[in-house]
Amino acid sequence: MNQASPSPAPTHRRADHVLIERLRAIVGGDNVLTEPIDLAPYAFDGTAALKQTPACVIFPQQREQVAPCVAAITQAGVPLVTRGSGTGLSGGSLPIDGGVALVMTALDQILAVDTANLTIRVEPGVITQRVDQEAAKHGLFYPPDPGSQKISTIGGNVAENSGGLRGLKYGVTRDYVMGLRVVLADGQEVWLGNQCVKDVAGYNLKDLFIGSEGTLGVVTEVLLKLLPRPAARRTMIATFAQIESAAQAVSDIIARKIVPCTVEFLDQMTIRCVEDYASLGLPTDAAALLLLESDGHPAVVEEESAAMRQALSDNGATGIETAETEEEADRLRTARRAAFSALARVSPTTILEDVTVPRSELAGMVRFCADCAQKHRLRIGTFGHMGDGNLHPTFLTDERDADEMHRVELALAEIVTETLRRGGTITGEHGVGLAKKPFLRQQLGDASYELLRTVKRSLDPQGLLNPGKIFD
Amino acid sequence: MNQASPSPAPTHRRADHVLIERLRAIVGGDNVLTEPIDLAPYAFDGTAALKQTPACVIFPQQREQVAPCVAAITQAGVPLVTRGSGTGLSGGSLPIDGGVALVMTALDQILAVDTANLTIRVEPGVITQRVDQEAAKHGLFYPPDPGSQKISTIGGNVAENSGGLRGLKYGVTRDYVMGLRVVLADGQEVWLGNQCVKDVAGYNLKDLFIGSEGTLGVVTEVLLKLLPRPAARRTMIATFAQIESAAQAVSDIIARKIVPCTVEFLDQMTIRCVEDYASLGLPTDAAALLLLESDGHPAVVEEESAAMRQALSDNGATGIETAETEEEADRLRTARRAAFSALARVSPTTILEDVTVPRSELAGMVRFCADCAQKHRLRIGTFGHMGDGNLHPTFLTDERDADEMHRVELALAEIVTETLRRGGTITGEHGVGLAKKPFLRQQLGDASYELLRTVKRSLDPQGLLNPGKIFD
Repeated sequence: MNQASPSPAPTHRRADHVLIERLRAIVGGDNVLTEPIDLAPYAFDGTAALKQTPACVIFPQQREQVAPCVAAITQAGVPLVTRGSGTGLSGGSLPIDGGVALVMTALDQILAVDTANLTIRVEPGVITQRVDQEAAKHGLFYPPDPGSQKISTIGGNVAENSGGLRGLKYGVTRDYVMGLRVVLADGQEVWLGNQCVKDVAGYNLKDLFIGSEGTLGVVTEVLLKLLPRPAARRTMIATFAQIESAAQAVSDIIARKIVPCTVEFLDQMTIRCVEDYASLGLPTDAAALLLLESDGHPAVVEEESAAMRQALSDNGATGIETAETEEEADRLRTARRAAFSALARVSPTTILEDVTVPRSELAGMVRFCADCAQKHRLRIGTFGHMGDGNLHPTFLTDERDADEMHRVELALAEIVTETLRRGGTITGEHGVGLAKKPFLRQQLGDASYELLRTVKRSLDPQGLLNPGKIFD
Repeated sequence: MNQASPSPAPTHRRADHVLIERLRAIVGGDNVLTEPIDLAPYAFDGTAALKQTPACVIFPQQREQVAPCVAAITQAGVPLVTRGSGTGLSGGSLPIDGGVALVMTALDQILAVDTANLTIRVEPGVITQRVDQEAAKHGLFYPPDPGSQKISTIGGNVAENSGGLRGLKYGVTRDYVMGLRVVLADGQEVWLGNQCVKDVAGYNLKDLFIGSEGTLGVVTEVLLKLLPRPAARRTMIATFAQIESAAQAVSDIIARKIVPCTVEFLDQMTIRCVEDYASLGLPTDAAALLLLESDGHPAVVEEESAAMRQALSDNGATGIETAETEEEADRLRTARRAAFSALARVSPTTILEDVTVPRSELAGMVRFCADCAQKHRLRIGTFGHMGDGNLHPTFLTDERDADEMHRVELALAEIVTETLRRGGTITGEHGVGLAKKPFLRQQLGDASYELLRTVKRSLDPQGLLNPGKIFD
């Protein structure tokens, strides 16, 4: 994927001794890494086949240290890449060669839970799952649950506008961010948004920064909305002999005016890899598996679950299993939660796609991916968020095999083109980063693409914040 | 409110004969008004005490006519103000003296309802209520219901990010906008957003344009998300001898993890005006009235309504009335829907505030408004969205009385300062426009305020789109 390789503009400078000393003075000497062996773990993120080594890695220990660090770095004309746990799957958190990697994991305080106004205020380094755990202590609920929730940070979720398994009913990270504290490129700190439920005072810049992948500023504080915790939840899985039947079952459920909190999908390749990996007793001859959850008031959950089972059965489900206990529900969820890990262990290189289409186009899109795999003699396992139309066709490949990698590139381009033809998007939840950069103009068109660049230039005139990501 | 008067920058030109002829050629001679008597109705919006007469008013008849109109106007260096029905309450849709008013009401086509993907695609001139009526034909639901829904346009709602009576549970206009077609200042047309439930391809510029009050571009098409229509709804009103008891009842309802779709509030002055106006049999000695609605699954509605009645009763409600039929529910809703009209007929000039505070600050804020009225010898009726913390203290005054208007200005400034002290916002749903312009910097702080200007300059370098609104 050579079109996507990061290359800082020629005017960018390498972090030199003077800058590194300034940064040491701000965050403390122990919190600046410069030795090659220490830098190595920060030269990657969760994306295959990408590596860039920063000149130094810094770990602010207090929020107040971030602004002076950013000011020092940009005044020196050095590129800056912010990251949390580095779980990104689009290369968005990959450092710039010779630049500074700003790691936010030490800023991990829960600052306040406000039960009267249903909000939680956190530092960006807080692990995603902990937000919901803190909320649960007060009977409250933070719905976004990206696959990496046990290790990803909330700051990273904001930067990528992460999704998760509950997106169909509950939306994504953006839907829960009420306010952000952000350090701008020049080191100024601003508060965007409001703790009120409604606020129309001035432009909505909060939502511009959410999902901007670290290219517009550095998030130092997040105010999140919480919901009352659903009283009940029911989990089931269903298997099908044809993908189309699974897709039709989902359409029928929606047509019955039911919005389940989760409708997840695994194809046969993924089912087999998961079964190999986790031995859950899944039927490896099934063409498709759905994981479905209903949550809310017990009476509604009961009624929705019955209607969902009926729709699954009407569409020829070959097996339906409903969890009777929370342990069983966990086992069923594992089938989906383990999908990426299960696929990743099969081959040396795993390339995860993130295309999304309108829900009604999903069955056709899954079929296209399968045909594409056959045509290009590739192994692709597809899973994803069927209720959202968000698919993760996953290439099981080997980056050392140049011929195979070439066929992967051809297949990727065909999948992207087909996605756009069906009114979809090149990325539903993983971001553009480096991996999707070659396709962004194709999706947006010239005028929208140039509009993005105009906004970027106005907020980061030197182009030092995560340069080369999203666009050149 | 002289600080807020609109004044085009000196470089702006008046629309001349050449430009008007160009516009006639694009939209047709019948769709361009230039006679003073024809311009008069467009020299106002719903905001008191503001008047500016445009040089011409144009009515595009087809979406494709908007971009060439905008290009012609900005190439001529003439200011442009877009409007729908002109129901705005912050002066945001007030034309610029000598500029062009672009009226979108003729673009009122419902373009598509997609029942598989739960979306509706409309032109900007569609009346808000019609969106929900079209949705209802398919068992679907468009929740945002601003007070002006019978006459406001969806384009105006997008420009202002309008709220409504269902905001607590269902959010505001922004939460339903999936995509926008926008004509930029230079006449280029861009599509922002996506028909997919999830999309993180590039910056979220859609949300930047929502609520930008016509200062960044002209919306020509809107793609809206729909929900399944709730199966049941229960409406009730409750009266209280003290405002604090009403506020505590609302807090108790939320603390019981109930999120009603509507929690609206009227103070005594408003109750009396409504009763005078609509003769609904309201108790005019009550200090506060709440209108509450629960919607959703019938079993949930039944249970929530019972819990809500209990919380109202526990907090000393002096009367609770639950609607048994849809006609009765309509009568109860009238108490709230009529509030603004009922207050507006009492005095020559009605100035409607729109301050919003975190829910927990609401009782204190209502009390402050009442004290402020007494201190400045003013009549203020307060009503609003109690669940959202969004209050509309309404000054019943007379713009011909200079001394009283001065006291209104003093009271407004004190209410704004108190709102900000309590962590609130100067506008929850009406926008900044001209009315709130003097207070925006105070809320945002210098750095955020300058950031807004940076974005404005980058997207509208000549400053011709709705100039002088939001900021100078």
